[in-house]
Amino acid sequence: MIQRRTEAALERCLPPATTAPTRLHAAMRYSALGGGKRIRPLLCHAAGEAIKADPRLIDVTACAVELIHAYSLVHDDLPAMDNDVLRRGRPTCHVEYDEATALLVGDALQTLAFQLLAEQPAAPSPERQLLMLTVLAQAAGSRGMAGGQAIDLAAVGLALSIEELEFMHIHKTGALIRAAVLLGAHAGGADEAALQTLGHYANRAGLLFQVVDDILDAEGSTVTLGKTAGKDAAQDKPTYVSMLGLTRAKELAARLRAEAHAALDVCQADTVRLRALTDYIVDRTF
Amino acid sequence: MIQRRTEAALERCLPPATTAPTRLHAAMRYSALGGGKRIRPLLCHAAGEAIKADPRLIDVTACAVELIHAYSLVHDDLPAMDNDVLRRGRPTCHVEYDEATALLVGDALQTLAFQLLAEQPAAPSPERQLLMLTVLAQAAGSRGMAGGQAIDLAAVGLALSIEELEFMHIHKTGALIRAAVLLGAHAGGADEAALQTLGHYANRAGLLFQVVDDILDAEGSTVTLGKTAGKDAAQDKPTYVSMLGLTRAKELAARLRAEAHAALDVCQADTVRLRALTDYIVDRTF
Repeated sequence: MIQRRTEAALERCLPPATTAPTRLHAAMRYSALGGGKRIRPLLCHAAGEAIKADPRLIDVTACAVELIHAYSLVHDDLPAMDNDVLRRGRPTCHVEYDEATALLVGDALQTLAFQLLAEQPAAPSPERQLLMLTVLAQAAGSRGMAGGQAIDLAAVGLALSIEELEFMHIHKTGALIRAAVLLGAHAGGADEAALQTLGHYANRAGLLFQVVDDILDAEGSTVTLGKTAGKDAAQDKPTYVSMLGLTRAKELAARLRAEAHAALDVCQADTVRLRALTDYIVDRTF
Repeated sequence: MIQRRTEAALERCLPPATTAPTRLHAAMRYSALGGGKRIRPLLCHAAGEAIKADPRLIDVTACAVELIHAYSLVHDDLPAMDNDVLRRGRPTCHVEYDEATALLVGDALQTLAFQLLAEQPAAPSPERQLLMLTVLAQAAGSRGMAGGQAIDLAAVGLALSIEELEFMHIHKTGALIRAAVLLGAHAGGADEAALQTLGHYANRAGLLFQVVDDILDAEGSTVTLGKTAGKDAAQDKPTYVSMLGLTRAKELAARLRAEAHAALDVCQADTVRLRALTDYIVDRTF
């Protein structure tokens, strides 16, 4: 239901494909609509629900986070980066359109994320909304997601320690997962204590998500994943599976799930939905 | 003096090259520091001065606009776009570093622009600051600068009408020039009347800037420009010079300058600096 809700909200905030420049707008819609697991919007809504935020405020925040995620996928798939041709079961943006368009699509989706979170009501106060914009930008930027991507590029073919691998993932995937949770809570006007507890949960959930992703990449097929399977190994990228082996990677996932639940145990808010979502993330693999 | 001030402000807001990921941060600094005419920060400060804004607030805004400009240059220079090797007298980012890094540099510079404008004091009220973020995002996004770039790509080799050329430039260059002026005014808490007058001025100044740029590209040498001269013609891009010829392009520049001055004539504020800046833009060519 949250997935459909997010799809509808994204549909509303993306410019129509009939508006000039039409090819760019069509390509933006192609890249941001029609699929994806919408894990970040789900986390955003679940955290918002814990704080009893107005779900309509959360829609804006969830879309902003998802647009950042969508932009990063379009750019990551480019030939200069991962050079991937399949995403969500369809040709990647630069394959379906062209490289220059895909570059601009990523650029414009990022801009739209910030535009949305600045121009739509998304928080109990304008001060809080500025803080949310800061949180999103910190998570997306060179000391967050984009920085993680840079570390990832530099790591190809290198023998990382497990700590270095964790450092990379905390940036590359963890930062935006964390932001999704915190922004959902901010939209509900969460206090410092709630933000801290949820932040601790989100740190575990972010790493969990990446471990699960590594397991899926190693175990899954291209058909079930909707993206090219086994590409981490093919590109000689260090992963939890390549470093720990499949069995220990699954043990790590189980431990991170337990830690995520434990973090929620001390939270005063109603975290039923966040718990279920954490299990859903893990159960994708087992 | 404003250029030096902007350089120092950019220097402060960019992450140190010693912070991980160091290569990305060094490349961000390489691309955003050390040169450029800083036309947008100049316009931002001049508009702010007209409204008697606190110059320290303007520094934040001017940096945010300039970071958007810097990101767009890094991405425009990529092989998939203009494939240029020289910028501000130095190798372009993807030549000095590599394509993947240049892609991430552009992404992260854009993020930093919004982070800066969200996290630093930049306006008389938080409501106004959210509005400024919206203005910047609208100017940068698919219905502004990025959209103009898409139209530009689609126009290569086509016979545009002068109206279509103008439409392209209003988006590609004009939108961010306009935002620079309006954001400077917003930082000073400008009222609706001042915003309208200055917006009208900025529309003329934006187009003027592009006409002058086309003249410089046709007349200048690579050494004086610090970027590859004559590349519009080489890439078969329509320009004011290719469409009107040099003489009529210069006449158009003179007319736009007069219109820009006329727009300032009706403005209540002190527009001495904006006038001088308009002349400075034109005098680059004559």
